[in-house]
Amino acid sequence: MILINGDFNMEKITVETSRRTELVEITEKVSLLLKKKGIRDAILHIYVPHTTCGLAINENADPSVKRDIISRLGEVVPRDANYTHSEGNSDAHIKSVLTGCSLSIFVEDGLLRLGTWQGIFLCEFDGPRRREVWIKGAGLKE
Amino acid sequence: MILINGDFNMEKITVETSRRTELVEITEKVSLLLKKKGIRDAILHIYVPHTTCGLAINENADPSVKRDIISRLGEVVPRDANYTHSEGNSDAHIKSVLTGCSLSIFVEDGLLRLGTWQGIFLCEFDGPRRREVWIKGAGLKE
Amino acid sequence: MILINGDFNMEKITVETSRRTELVEITEKVSLLLKKKGIRDAILHIYVPHTTCGLAINENADPSVKRDIISRLGEVVPRDANYTHSEGNSDAHIKSVLTGCSLSIFVEDGLLRLGTWQGIFLCEFDGPRRREVWIKGAGLKE
Repeated sequence: MILINGDFNMEKITVETSRRTELVEITEKVSLLLKKKGIRDAILHIYVPHTTCGLAINENADPSVKRDIISRLGEVVPRDANYTHSEGNSDAHIKSVLTGCSLSIFVEDGLLRLGTWQGIFLCEFDGPRRREVWIKGAGLKE
Repeated sequence: MILINGDFNMEKITVETSRRTELVEITEKVSLLLKKKGIRDAILHIYVPHTTCGLAINENADPSVKRDIISRLGEVVPRDANYTHSEGNSDAHIKSVLTGCSLSIFVEDGLLRLGTWQGIFLCEFDGPRRREVWIKGAGLKE
Repeated sequence: MILINGDFNMEKITVETSRRTELVEITEKVSLLLKKKGIRDAILHIYVPHTTCGLAINENADPSVKRDIISRLGEVVPRDANYTHSEGNSDAHIKSVLTGCSLSIFVEDGLLRLGTWQGIFLCEFDGPRRREVWIKGAGLKE
């Protein structure tokens, strides 16, 4: 095993979303990236370089959870609400601030250490679009 | 002092919550872990592997702040609101997405570098339960 | 180029806010810090040690986006709402929990890797005040 000092080069994942608002699971894509890069033990930082989508970790077993999250966020931040931004997507910018655009997760023994029911999601708030997810980390490589 | 390359092994803290919704301060448990591991200088990443609780940093001096946070989150995301998830805890999943499940904090000279009024809280949204908090970091050990 | 093992010492940026609630862009201040410290490749962690402000990454091109974010957060968490905290700024504490107080961003080739439309903002919810932003990271220095 080779010890890597500092951090891995940034990698990009592409995600195609298909609706205006939806949660798209990216856990498998992140896992495949770990394997491809031979990452054994690390802190991974995941980042979206967009201002109308976000990142979240939540339940990936029952799809009704995703629906409830999207639906309630739409109540809290409605699409139309006397916004001043002229592009008609202020709701998406605001939801992006609420969910956030960066996450940190752990890798040990070559595996993502998520909780039993957790998956990693890109939160699309102004799709459909092609989105990028950036990943960088520090740790051990084989 | 020994320079550690890469990251510390992940550590786990257990937190027992006693109500359905509450903020439980975990600052002292995190500080004790630092001392136990001899961590002098680091970036610590804190993570909850659950989908119905979250993490927050906020005021730990006046307990009324915790009450107001819990109370307002309950207005923004009510327990009953035509959710489709059958387990009756969609509100907890949604609040977990809003607060987030990962935090990064700094350690210098063996001490957590929090602001004067800041404490670290596990945000319980579907308790009482036994919760885990995972901690991993990179930096210097004595 | 010299390889730095572990992490950089924490740096502080000062931000003077001028209104009770506003988003103040700090991207340029963070970029100048990178140059001053000669940081080439890193994961930067940005942190506010306060309990009534937060951090966000969002659009910095059209100022109407900032206005809409501030305005909608004020609807979701009104200034007066039967709060129990006696200092009259419970709304600021709650908004701070919703936006969060830590962010992680990437540096490559000496440049902040933000998306095309992204800027880094201190979210003031109880100003005007003098605020600190703390920055620490791991990576390569020239």
